[in-house]
This record gives sequence, structure tokens and C-alpha cells, in this order.
Amino acid sequence: MQVAIPLFPRFTALDAIGPYEVLQRIPDAEVVFVGHRRGEVRSDNGMLGIICDARFDELPRPDLLVVPGGIGTRALLGDTELLDWVREAHVHTRFTTSVCTGSLLLAAAGLLDGLTATTHWSAVELLEHLGARYVDQRVVEHLPRRIVTSAGVSSGIDMALRLVELLLDAESACAVQLLIEYDPQPPFDCGSRAKAAEAVLQRAAQLRR
Amino acid sequence: MQVAIPLFPRFTALDAIGPYEVLQRIPDAEVVFVGHRRGEVRSDNGMLGIICDARFDELPRPDLLVVPGGIGTRALLGDTELLDWVREAHVHTRFTTSVCTGSLLLAAAGLLDGLTATTHWSAVELLEHLGARYVDQRVVEHLPRRIVTSAGVSSGIDMALRLVELLLDAESACAVQLLIEYDPQPPFDCGSRAKAAEAVLQRAAQLRR
Repeated sequence: MQVAIPLFPRFTALDAIGPYEVLQRIPDAEVVFVGHRRGEVRSDNGMLGIICDARFDELPRPDLLVVPGGIGTRALLGDTELLDWVREAHVHTRFTTSVCTGSLLLAAAGLLDGLTATTHWSAVELLEHLGARYVDQRVVEHLPRRIVTSAGVSSGIDMALRLVELLLDAESACAVQLLIEYDPQPPFDCGSRAKAAEAVLQRAAQLRR
Repeated sequence: MQVAIPLFPRFTALDAIGPYEVLQRIPDAEVVFVGHRRGEVRSDNGMLGIICDARFDELPRPDLLVVPGGIGTRALLGDTELLDWVREAHVHTRFTTSVCTGSLLLAAAGLLDGLTATTHWSAVELLEHLGARYVDQRVVEHLPRRIVTSAGVSSGIDMALRLVELLLDAESACAVQLLIEYDPQPPFDCGSRAKAAEAVLQRAAQLRR
């Protein structure tokens, strides 16, 4: 089973690596990081370089597509090479999925027209502008259409465990959860906009700058 | 503030990228992936290549050290170049930390002698053999000694949020948690050995092979 994770300049690393860490544990899964060109691509702040091992045209029919987000998605909303590849890959995937603002790219490719979907809380308006209907859920599934979107950054781990359940079974998904010791104990409880106090929202806005 | 994340052949990606995604959001933090050599190093299954932007000798005094794990740690338990670097860096760090089997390297460097510490559930005996006293906690802190260890793979996210609290304040840690939308909703509850049924433990053993 081939899993394609497209990368691009200014991607958000955990969007991609959370699902990678889960999905690579599926027996016989081959996870391929894919890009406009083979070679290094840099994360949103430039501090992390990951290698793309294939070009989009070298991987036309992945079984599973996981599109990460990042501030770099904004520059790709009219990128026909990437968007055509996503659209054509989707014809044959078992699931076409996104993490965080990766859903902006699914929407720009026309895959979310009129569908409910999710994204990072900071990109809700843009997602709706691109034709999707935002819902405030961590993972949004459209199984008949084989499309799954997940919320900001860390949500890709939750989504990927659900994908293991869909692709294999619940026991395998539990086993992967155990292998990555995903027994979350965040020291605070402010991981969503609804839970965050005003002072935290203001501090988050400062940190984004 | 300089954050060093050493990489080595067969590292576990989420061990490194979980904390990276949190810590890079500290204002003025520079996160540097560092290795025996500059250039590409491959994850445990070889499917992911990350670039090391510096050699150990180029980064002698990081403010924060985060040592990830992976099956590749076993080959480094006698690696004097890495272990000497860890030991010497620790003299000046604000915190010296590990995720997953990264604690084996802290122990091999002599930093955990007689101390309580944690690691991935599969490496408990080896950690104790190296002189630490294992405790079944997600994050184990020795603040006077500036040493923090965390459990398997995904636990590095929880640890890194706590480090933001220690380095800045609780409000900043909450803001980072919100930015990475870390509001975990795992589809199952079997992320620790204590929570996993026998069938899940057996399936996990199969998947590890």
C-alpha cells in the first residue's frame, strides 16, 4: 500500500509527521514524501529540511493521500501542478485526507465543494471561501466519497489512527496507538479555541507574528 | 535560545518532530537538527530523510537539548562522539531532555545514574541496565539537575509544552497548545501498556516485527 505525503515550502512538520508515524506501521505500507522536485524542502520557519523522494508525476496512483498544511499552502491555491495531481490521484485512492490547512488544497482542487470539512481554527474563513462548509470537529469523514479532513496540526495523529481502523481493523489501530504510546496527558486543557481564555488567544496571536 | 535535536540513523520521527513543533514557537528559539555529519539522515524504516544542519562539534552549547529515540539508539550506546557531546552540552543547558528511547542515550552518557526516568515501554529493562530507575510516568522531571525524560514517541509533545511553561510561563505554553490545536481525541484508549488488552499487545508485537 502506497501512502503519499506531499510536501512544499513552508509546510508544518507535525501535520505530516504525525500521520507518517502512525501509517508507516501498517504492514506493507510504503510512505513516500513527494514534491514538485526531488530533494530538500523546508518547513514553515525554515529550521527543518525534509527530503522529497519522488516528484508528483512519479507517484500518480497512491492508495492513500495525506495532505499536510502550513503557511505555504496559501501560495499553492492556484498551483495547477499540485492541484491537478491531487485531483487525479483522488480518483484511485482509498482515502484522500488532509491535516490542518491541507484542507485548503483539497478545497482548491475542487474536492470539498459543498462538503463539510475542517481545518486549523485560523483558516476557517479561507476554507469556506474555497467552497467547503466548516464544522468544528477534530476529524470530519465522508466515507462514501473517501475524503477525511482533520483540524489543526496535532489532529493528524487522531485521524491517522482512525484510518488504520478503516484500512485494517480496530485492533491494529489500538496496537499502533500503543506502539507510539499515544496516551495524551497535556499539561493544560486549552487545545481548542473554545477552551482557550482571552489572554491565551492574545498570546497565541503574538506568537504567530 | 538554541535548541539542539540530535538525529542519527534509524531515529523515530515523531520523537523529534513533536517537540520541534512546540519549541520552535518560543520567540527567538532557533531549533537545530544536529548529527555526526551535516546532511541527510534516515528514520527507523528508511522512509523519511531529515537534514542535519550542523555537526555535534559545531553546536557545543545548546540551551536546550532534546534527544529523540528510535531503534538506532542501540547502536549508539558506546558512541563516544555523541555521548561526550551530550555530557559536555549538559553542563551548560537549561534543560537536557529525552523522548522515548532517547533516555537510553542520556543513561549511556551517565546522566541518569541512580535517577528515576522513563522511556518507551519496550525498553524498560535496557534503561535500568544502563543505571536509571524506571518509573511508569509520561514525563519525569528532575528540575534541580535540569533533566527531563518522557515516555514513548508521542509523549514528547506533552513534555515540550511543559518545557515552554518552565522556560517562559503557563500562558505561553497554553498558547502553543492552541496553535498546534493539541486537543487530543484518540479514537481508542489503549495508549499505554496498562490500558492495552492482551490481543492488542500481541498485535503490537506482530507489527513491531
